[in-house]
Amino acid sequence: MVLGALPAAAGGDAAAGRKRAAACQACHGLDGLSKLPEAPNLAGQVEVYLVKVLREYRDGTRRNEVMNVVAKELTDADIDNLAAYYGGLQIEVLPPG
Amino acid sequence: MVLGALPAAAGGDAAAGRKRAAACQACHGLDGLSKLPEAPNLAGQVEVYLVKVLREYRDGTRRNEVMNVVAKELTDADIDNLAAYYGGLQIEVLPPG
Repeated sequence: MVLGALPAAAGGDAAAGRKRAAACQACHGLDGLSKLPEAPNLAGQVEVYLVKVLREYRDGTRRNEVMNVVAKELTDADIDNLAAYYGGLQIEVLPPG
Repeated sequence: MVLGALPAAAGGDAAAGRKRAAACQACHGLDGLSKLPEAPNLAGQVEVYLVKVLREYRDGTRRNEVMNVVAKELTDADIDNLAAYYGGLQIEVLPPG
């Protein structure tokens, strides 16, 4: 199958992303765990996936009322940094209990 | 705790979802951890978010070359079951460092 084009590996600054995440935390948490049923968890998400999706929200090719507004305010560096921050949070899948 | 604020599960059958996940695992893993940079982790993702997104991929309002094809094969029950399976995987965000 043909996969869509991915952004190059981001190399964002996670510490800067953590600060920028003030704009994200009400819905996605500073810990990357969703605070709202509408909002996905972001903790440990694939970094280049986060970059791709944020760019799509910014340019409108991915549509969501909230995210299209929020992402419009993000620079390329903001996006790379946010992806580095949320993608860099380490998660563990627990064994079924 | 944040996850407690989320609405009740969509009522899918996680065991049935695990079987149906044969169609998902090459990219998203049976453990819900991405096997490809294009594909997000699904482990522990918000269940109602997964239902919403799969429906959007199925009806084409969310666009992705791969997912639009894959989701077309899913019934409403498949979607609920897959969301119950992947959303039901327990994750933990590890402390930094």
